[in-house]
Amino acid sequence: MKIPKAIQNLIEAFERLPGIGPKTAQRLTFYLLHVPQLELDRFAQALENLKKETILCSVCFTIGEEDPCSICSDKQRDSSIICVVEHPLDVLALEKNGKYHGAYHVLHGRIDPLNNIGPDEIYIEQLLERIRNNAGIKEIILATNPTMEGEATAMYIHKQIKQIVQNGHQLKITRIGRGLPVGADLEYADEVTLQRAMEGRSEY
Amino acid sequence: MKIPKAIQNLIEAFERLPGIGPKTAQRLTFYLLHVPQLELDRFAQALENLKKETILCSVCFTIGEEDPCSICSDKQRDSSIICVVEHPLDVLALEKNGKYHGAYHVLHGRIDPLNNIGPDEIYIEQLLERIRNNAGIKEIILATNPTMEGEATAMYIHKQIKQIVQNGHQLKITRIGRGLPVGADLEYADEVTLQRAMEGRSEY
Repeated sequence: MKIPKAIQNLIEAFERLPGIGPKTAQRLTFYLLHVPQLELDRFAQALENLKKETILCSVCFTIGEEDPCSICSDKQRDSSIICVVEHPLDVLALEKNGKYHGAYHVLHGRIDPLNNIGPDEIYIEQLLERIRNNAGIKEIILATNPTMEGEATAMYIHKQIKQIVQNGHQLKITRIGRGLPVGADLEYADEVTLQRAMEGRSEY
Repeated sequence: MKIPKAIQNLIEAFERLPGIGPKTAQRLTFYLLHVPQLELDRFAQALENLKKETILCSVCFTIGEEDPCSICSDKQRDSSIICVVEHPLDVLALEKNGKYHGAYHVLHGRIDPLNNIGPDEIYIEQLLERIRNNAGIKEIILATNPTMEGEATAMYIHKQIKQIVQNGHQLKITRIGRGLPVGADLEYADEVTLQRAMEGRSEY
């Protein structure tokens, strides 16, 4: 007995997603066989419209419904501070917190030579362009992830910005704080985190 | 900043799937933003057609492309043996093995009172009807899972079949073998499995 083509197609579509193996793909597909057609149609519609109804902001490159995005066009926000992150999800995480009122710049990745991603594959040049054209920018917060690739990306961007900044332009470049996360246990923290935590200590 | 509606819709669709939480749903959705529209359309198409292009076999209730399914309409197979399983995926697992040449009966679930699934919610009555109408059936293999619910379902079906079998009808009812799986370690096997393995021992 062969698996019906319609089922096989959906299993293969699920398998192509990251972190979903053949067994999970099968399980999800057979689960969906018991779901009303209306819900399947709604799911299909959401997939089809995903990219049609979203757009990259031409200023900060986050994903939104308009261009410029709701953050870049918000006059209440301080556009003299730019927080540089790897992914649109990072913007959502920071926005959920709600304490940050500056602008963003989404790189859509990080420099990762092992996966053939160089500085030109992500939106670094666009960030530099933004700094060059806007002398009002006061601070760049490098908020790439504290991973090896994220640190290397932050370092590279720092170097590039240093090169283009004009003498008169007062521009501060900062790195997001690294140390022990809330609820962590000193005993179980890895060496590098501990070292960063000591380096990043602040006055009490 | 609010998540764009198109993204929110897809996240919610993924969240409704079993075993997929909010974080995974977000991750999958943002991954799909980087996938070509053609692939999204193909995924959507597979979802829409899933139920339209498949049908329940009216004999054994497995999911296939025709009715009766390719197994039930195969004259080479021995329709006097019926293997009763919980899910269509179980049929696929047994068919992949390729050693079994009888027919199937898919219950589409098991008796599970804690989840409000009684004998009438699954295809038990249809199995009994099949046995009543076909005096040629020689063996029923109860291959529900060796879980508490699967055992209870097997026990219930066994009792029901006993009640309807005519005096003249020579019908054997068997339960799929339970014991240690290949590659297992006696030391780490649980008590019930060990007990079943002892009960199910065969002559060497």
